[in-house]
Amino acid sequence: MTSATLFDLQKILQDADIIRDEAEIEALLRGAAAAPPDSQDRWTDLIAPNATTAVRAQLAQAGRAYMDGLGSPFTDGPAPKERLDALRVEMRKQGLDGLVIPRTDEYQGEYIAQKAERVLWLTGFAGSAGTVVVGLDKAAIFIDGRYTLQVLDQVDTSLFTPQHMIEAPATDWIAENFKAGDKIGFDPWLHTQHGAGHLNLAAQRAGASLVRVEPNPVDTVWQDQPAAPLTPVVPQTLEFAGEASEDKRARLGAALAKKSIDAAAITATDSIAWLLNMRGGDVPNCPLPLSFALLHQDGAVDWFIDERKLTPSVRASLGNAVSLRPESDYADALAELGRQGKTVQADPATAPCLIFDRLQQYGARIVEAPDPCLMPKSCKNAVEIEGTRSAHKRDGAALSKFLHWIAETAQKGGLTELEAIDHLRSIREKGENFRGLSFDTIAGAGSNGAVIHYRAGPRTNKAIETGQLLLVDSGAQYLDGTTDVTRTMAIGTPTAEMIHRFTLVLKGHIAIATARFPVGVTGSQLDPLARLPLWQAGLDFDHGTGHGVGSYLNVHEGPQRIAKAHNAVALKPGMILSNEPGYYKAGEYGIRIENLVVVKEVDTPPAGAERALLEFETITLAPIDRRLIDASLLSEDERTWLNAYHARVFAEIAPQLEGAEKAWLESATAPI
Amino acid sequence: MTSATLFDLQKILQDADIIRDEAEIEALLRGAAAAPPDSQDRWTDLIAPNATTAVRAQLAQAGRAYMDGLGSPFTDGPAPKERLDALRVEMRKQGLDGLVIPRTDEYQGEYIAQKAERVLWLTGFAGSAGTVVVGLDKAAIFIDGRYTLQVLDQVDTSLFTPQHMIEAPATDWIAENFKAGDKIGFDPWLHTQHGAGHLNLAAQRAGASLVRVEPNPVDTVWQDQPAAPLTPVVPQTLEFAGEASEDKRARLGAALAKKSIDAAAITATDSIAWLLNMRGGDVPNCPLPLSFALLHQDGAVDWFIDERKLTPSVRASLGNAVSLRPESDYADALAELGRQGKTVQADPATAPCLIFDRLQQYGARIVEAPDPCLMPKSCKNAVEIEGTRSAHKRDGAALSKFLHWIAETAQKGGLTELEAIDHLRSIREKGENFRGLSFDTIAGAGSNGAVIHYRAGPRTNKAIETGQLLLVDSGAQYLDGTTDVTRTMAIGTPTAEMIHRFTLVLKGHIAIATARFPVGVTGSQLDPLARLPLWQAGLDFDHGTGHGVGSYLNVHEGPQRIAKAHNAVALKPGMILSNEPGYYKAGEYGIRIENLVVVKEVDTPPAGAERALLEFETITLAPIDRRLIDASLLSEDERTWLNAYHARVFAEIAPQLEGAEKAWLESATAPI
Repeated sequence: MTSATLFDLQKILQDADIIRDEAEIEALLRGAAAAPPDSQDRWTDLIAPNATTAVRAQLAQAGRAYMDGLGSPFTDGPAPKERLDALRVEMRKQGLDGLVIPRTDEYQGEYIAQKAERVLWLTGFAGSAGTVVVGLDKAAIFIDGRYTLQVLDQVDTSLFTPQHMIEAPATDWIAENFKAGDKIGFDPWLHTQHGAGHLNLAAQRAGASLVRVEPNPVDTVWQDQPAAPLTPVVPQTLEFAGEASEDKRARLGAALAKKSIDAAAITATDSIAWLLNMRGGDVPNCPLPLSFALLHQDGAVDWFIDERKLTPSVRASLGNAVSLRPESDYADALAELGRQGKTVQADPATAPCLIFDRLQQYGARIVEAPDPCLMPKSCKNAVEIEGTRSAHKRDGAALSKFLHWIAETAQKGGLTELEAIDHLRSIREKGENFRGLSFDTIAGAGSNGAVIHYRAGPRTNKAIETGQLLLVDSGAQYLDGTTDVTRTMAIGTPTAEMIHRFTLVLKGHIAIATARFPVGVTGSQLDPLARLPLWQAGLDFDHGTGHGVGSYLNVHEGPQRIAKAHNAVALKPGMILSNEPGYYKAGEYGIRIENLVVVKEVDTPPAGAERALLEFETITLAPIDRRLIDASLLSEDERTWLNAYHARVFAEIAPQLEGAEKAWLESATAPI
Repeated sequence: MTSATLFDLQKILQDADIIRDEAEIEALLRGAAAAPPDSQDRWTDLIAPNATTAVRAQLAQAGRAYMDGLGSPFTDGPAPKERLDALRVEMRKQGLDGLVIPRTDEYQGEYIAQKAERVLWLTGFAGSAGTVVVGLDKAAIFIDGRYTLQVLDQVDTSLFTPQHMIEAPATDWIAENFKAGDKIGFDPWLHTQHGAGHLNLAAQRAGASLVRVEPNPVDTVWQDQPAAPLTPVVPQTLEFAGEASEDKRARLGAALAKKSIDAAAITATDSIAWLLNMRGGDVPNCPLPLSFALLHQDGAVDWFIDERKLTPSVRASLGNAVSLRPESDYADALAELGRQGKTVQADPATAPCLIFDRLQQYGARIVEAPDPCLMPKSCKNAVEIEGTRSAHKRDGAALSKFLHWIAETAQKGGLTELEAIDHLRSIREKGENFRGLSFDTIAGAGSNGAVIHYRAGPRTNKAIETGQLLLVDSGAQYLDGTTDVTRTMAIGTPTAEMIHRFTLVLKGHIAIATARFPVGVTGSQLDPLARLPLWQAGLDFDHGTGHGVGSYLNVHEGPQRIAKAHNAVALKPGMILSNEPGYYKAGEYGIRIENLVVVKEVDTPPAGAERALLEFETITLAPIDRRLIDASLLSEDERTWLNAYHARVFAEIAPQLEGAEKAWLESATAPI
């Protein structure tokens, strides 16, 4: 079937005067197949950007058939033992007694491409975090509390002993399970310096040594390893980006020059996307092209990326100061800077340790400093803020429709979490500028709501029943902004306890929403305001209060954060954060109220103010379930905030609704 | 006069059958003279512990005459140039191009003995913090914002260029004022490893090298350098300490054994005082004997201290497990542990870098860890807490008398800050168990109140006038506890602005006083609660909200703190902290409301509480000026707290007062 389809594809192209050989088409399709489902059909933009709609429909159909024929590179459940056997043969060949395999890629991103799913391929484990350590006669998989049940379903535990990564960390296992003289391999592309340092100490405790291995031995034995994903790079136009790439590059380059730094190695994919005003679709949920970059002090950039991802027009739009180079040249380019005795900046928090290895080995002067894009990316410009306000109005309308649907439908019974997730997506997809979800929707009914990182699957999918709370945490990517919102709804009549706890969470939410604070205050300092009402009742929640959010970029973005954990970054105007306190009663229900907020200067400072003040503008617009609020527990100021917020929700969202939905919104946002 | 007096002293002793040669008596008196004024007369306890009252009165009188005859080792104002010249001659002799002279001692304590006042002797600068860097042809003195005026009075700025230690730090000056090949000396007893690391980097920037110098070249040229202070060591009895020293030592020794650590080097004087249940009087305000210690894993202690400070009965009370050794043996004892290949713990935050040098040089295995006394010392036991409650009742009565006196006297005019300070001390001195002040009283009238670290002196002493606020921050050492309290009083009629700001500060104070928080919360997390009412008005204060306080020990004690600055120490039951938000209007007035609080478990947790909760018990008892409170700005809960606090103040303090004072207290604590 496969080769016939390739021939078909070649033929379709030929008829449109596009001449491509089969190998070229095949490589493109394998790259497309290795991209997330949402992006797979975009390959036609790359091979036939100017073809007619009809031709592209034909191509898409034939391409889909080809890709379906490739099958999945992963098992559903435990991976066959042969993979581990083959890996050990390879380890012996290389003289390795151990190998560390983290679920990370060379970009240290939150989402990784199929080809980087080494843990999944080797073990069957599909969780979003985990590390495998393989010895010649034993192996272990290290997972966190979220995955203690899932690992039993997905992994052959006679091959890989499951371990809790906090209580029995991989470093302890390494120290205890290897012996003096052993060699333990690690892939320097997949660990930060800091991470490698920990592994090194662990190996030392056993008297063993940690050795760099390139290429990764898993890749050597993984015969049908997926290709690197191939999806089109799409310019983020000035209309949405608000600042031209050349201006950003000139500004950041000048800052490097001022510190006598020749170049900065940038490996964080969202930083590169922001710097070049480019987006892509190589990984799920984040609109990112996978690539590396070098920013020079004159503002020029060497962009290390598979050229096939860029159509001729996109390539032309880059201008002369951006040079395209193959991604595989990156390490050599660093070595070259070293040979020239250049001063190169790299970020120890985000760059793989190979970056530092190469620079050091070839004599570069290394300056360890945060990624130069980090702070300017996080402080959104006026165009980005206006864009995200607009995206949130549309997203709020979609969510309000969904909340109305839940209010109408869930009462009848029979609805499941997965159905709710699908329905919400189907509403959002119709919105202007919609580009996909910003993360996998969490819909937790009853006790599932109390599992903080719950993700509904066929095994856990619950019917949404009367008397439960339903927690839905969701968000989308729009060309003009990224959203992330959580609402908790009463299905039927809530208990007095649910109402009490929800109201405490709301009080914490309002404390953040209304806080005014001097310039210099960090998110760590604001975090307790969200918890105090819960603390006074002997309650708390075990996650951060807020994370940074990108502008049509990652839904989790640094460096700012509102959290118990120390964070020294002062909040700055233009930063977007979530405000999401919660409460979770294990086995019963979960509550979370999440809006996004933008940091801004206080418009009219109070009389006599001596310090420059900042505050938050709430940009998420959707009703907060009034049936879960005990108004008697709210202060006058809190009640005023809630009613003003709901009035704003109605004013902004109602014009986008009609009939029953609009009527429902009116009652859902009525003052209390 | 001097030799005649020595002869007199010898004669008095002889008549009481105590035979001492003149040299011995002279050394003792020179040690006594080098102690703080409060402790100088205690030398009679050392030479004639069993003599009659009459004999001791004679001795004291003759001793005082002898000590007065010694004169002051320091100038009042700029030091003569000859001292700097002599130092440079010595530096040249030793091949040094530079020398760093910090105002610290080998114990890294807050208060230092006269012999460690090298900066004062060399320059005339009497501030509590400062560093001098001397080059062969230039020198600079680095001071903070408190001392920018004082330095001009006290230092010959043609010899020492004044520099702001934050804006133009010594490290920059070193980097810019030395050249390649220069040798810059530093005394490894006076710097932590961390501090020496910074100096080293600074020297490297100049291409210079940092070299250890022993003895300190200042000591070599300081011919009449005072002796080490000699004051009696006094046991802190079980009645006040609550736990026997042998129990403390056994407990901490066992913890070392568990970590396979042979011994801990303890250099913090308050840790040693706590561990051995001993107090002293070698430095101002803190009841400390200066000494070093080694704690062994069997609970035995080598105590490196001048034996003359211990009377035979005190020596006997130490038991067999505490061995006395000369203080000068400490470095050799560390070397010996090294030669034996022992594992030794030391605290990089408190130990001088010489400790680590010696251990490393002689082959010890070094474990860097916090001083093992730090945490147990900070979590007071039940006896200490009961003691401090009792001390605070007496201290509250003294302060209430003072506040009444201010209310009566200051209105008449003519009273000065220094008079207020003296009067407050004279009241406190009459209290049971009084042992001295815990720090130099701050009394700031009007604009002086806005100078956060203000200390009244002849030059700054202000009359307290109608229309001003008077801020008084004071505290005392009692055998059963250490106090620290700030009250701000209106003299005459306060302005509306003063009332507004005072009420905001009070709201922050009450927020801390009433906070409930789960186990694990740090002081950094609570800090914003004290600031939020000010923040909302565009105001703030530039100091921490609270510091730890000892139990008849240092008034500033770690490791806990309530402050903006990151502090990872979770609050634990028994910790004592100050709660002291403030507000300062430069050039006009200062406001601070300070009570001490003890961390305790919540007695009756709220129904449904899921987390173990902690809260504060306020132990300071003195009225808060009701004329400065705008009750309309207080919430119902805040008003309830204030009235309950004042009712408690009246109930506890009134029985200690009479007549007009009692009547005044009743009106000062009436409900609002």
